[in-house]
Amino acid sequence: MDVNKELSSRASQIEEVIYSYLPDEKNGYQKTVLEAMNYSVKAGGKRIRPILMNETYKLFGGKSKAIEPLAAAIEMIHTYSLVHDDLPAMDNDMLRRGKPTTHAKFGEAMGILAGDALLNYAFETGLKAMDVDPDNQAVYKALQILAKKAGIYGMIGGQVVDVESEKQQNISKDKLDFIYELKTGALIEASMMIGALLGGATDQEVSKIELVAKKVGLAFQIQDDILDVIGDQETLGKPIGSDEENQKATYVVYEGIEKSKKDVENLTRDAIDILNDLPYENEFLKELLMWLVMRDK
Amino acid sequence: MDVNKELSSRASQIEEVIYSYLPDEKNGYQKTVLEAMNYSVKAGGKRIRPILMNETYKLFGGKSKAIEPLAAAIEMIHTYSLVHDDLPAMDNDMLRRGKPTTHAKFGEAMGILAGDALLNYAFETGLKAMDVDPDNQAVYKALQILAKKAGIYGMIGGQVVDVESEKQQNISKDKLDFIYELKTGALIEASMMIGALLGGATDQEVSKIELVAKKVGLAFQIQDDILDVIGDQETLGKPIGSDEENQKATYVVYEGIEKSKKDVENLTRDAIDILNDLPYENEFLKELLMWLVMRDK
Repeated sequence: MDVNKELSSRASQIEEVIYSYLPDEKNGYQKTVLEAMNYSVKAGGKRIRPILMNETYKLFGGKSKAIEPLAAAIEMIHTYSLVHDDLPAMDNDMLRRGKPTTHAKFGEAMGILAGDALLNYAFETGLKAMDVDPDNQAVYKALQILAKKAGIYGMIGGQVVDVESEKQQNISKDKLDFIYELKTGALIEASMMIGALLGGATDQEVSKIELVAKKVGLAFQIQDDILDVIGDQETLGKPIGSDEENQKATYVVYEGIEKSKKDVENLTRDAIDILNDLPYENEFLKELLMWLVMRDK
Repeated sequence: MDVNKELSSRASQIEEVIYSYLPDEKNGYQKTVLEAMNYSVKAGGKRIRPILMNETYKLFGGKSKAIEPLAAAIEMIHTYSLVHDDLPAMDNDMLRRGKPTTHAKFGEAMGILAGDALLNYAFETGLKAMDVDPDNQAVYKALQILAKKAGIYGMIGGQVVDVESEKQQNISKDKLDFIYELKTGALIEASMMIGALLGGATDQEVSKIELVAKKVGLAFQIQDDILDVIGDQETLGKPIGSDEENQKATYVVYEGIEKSKKDVENLTRDAIDILNDLPYENEFLKELLMWLVMRDK
């Protein structure tokens, strides 16, 4: 299986779904914010979260369109978090994926409002899943998971601690784990758990999927750190880890590169083992999870 | 009936409910954002929206606790909108109700994140209404109304156009109506509609309540404009309307003070007439609506 090719074909499919849930920007006095929202979502990305949601949904035999508004919702939440991250008071980034960031293009006030609008619209969109299947209690649970994993006990919680830690020279391993688990991990967990729930998974199966996602999310970020260090080495000719003390605290700084690589392997193997134990099969999902953590760029 | 006294007693009661839904700020690395959220909500305010929700709920005979998470949610949404409005890129306000604004106290990054957190937590909280009464389709409709009226076709839509209009000397009456209807009106509509829905109102009754709220919301804002003009007159000794051409476009600038006063009266009477036509009775709700639009400060 050519995972890259499969992934890009699935990204196109899911983009069509996501775009169909975006607001019509041609109408209304509030046009600018609609344009800014759509610009932000259409700026690109691998669409990992909605793809993971949809593939986990299929793993459990899900077939209806009820998953679609939730897939769109998770991408909107991911996008709003990037829009607000890029703001001058946060990372102050003017470019993302080679394009002007939302506030760079539409101004700072509109960057704030477009982010707010995307977060709110994510819930407005996710709630539409109820219209597809109004008696499905799973939709309610899915929305509760979405809200929890995106909020103060999920992504925002991780982001807050990450922002505060940037000013600090040393942070504890425990705090680093907290950031890793929440900032990126929480939305990956939400994606897979919602897919499982709507696909008909039992509570016990949803818990197993949460564990799979937790391991994959952590492995994904450690791999990011490893690639950063290797990138530095190739670009700057510095030996690996030479400037650890000046670096931002990362998993690699704490554990060293060899242990980090080993951990990525172990976390991935554990995740795949849990999936293999389930009496369902989605080969692409397994390939995708391995690709996510083993990628070389 | 002493409306002021009744209102302040009901505000205390509803504050107890709202505060019970705030996060426990003692725990976790993300402590700062929890403190910033709680600080923002506890900074005061008349709690008009949750009180309107609760009184409309009672009007239709609502008795359960299912309304409570939604009352807390609407106040969180109102609060996040103030926190983001106060940011440097928006109104750049350092004080609100005599206290430092959230970003003034916690820094700009935390102001953005606390606003995001409150918006997300509003949905996390509102979804808890389902736990109280999981078979109640009204809760689901209520959440859809909350999301819609807070979003791009509601409050955020109005806010966007208001921000953009500040740079413009002249805006059309139609655009002004759009801002008035959405920026403040939408959340007042949501409050009363959600109260009605959960209280057991029929769809037709919910539509009537939406109309009541629309009229009251508009009258409330026109009254605000009138009080501003009267305040200017008293403070500056200028004749009413003397500097209309240099002023921000308001309803009073367009219609003149006498017509504006007349419109407040008519809108209020229409609203009360619709309420009187319903076969239910909540005397305090009527008194409150009249107080809201007839207040002198």
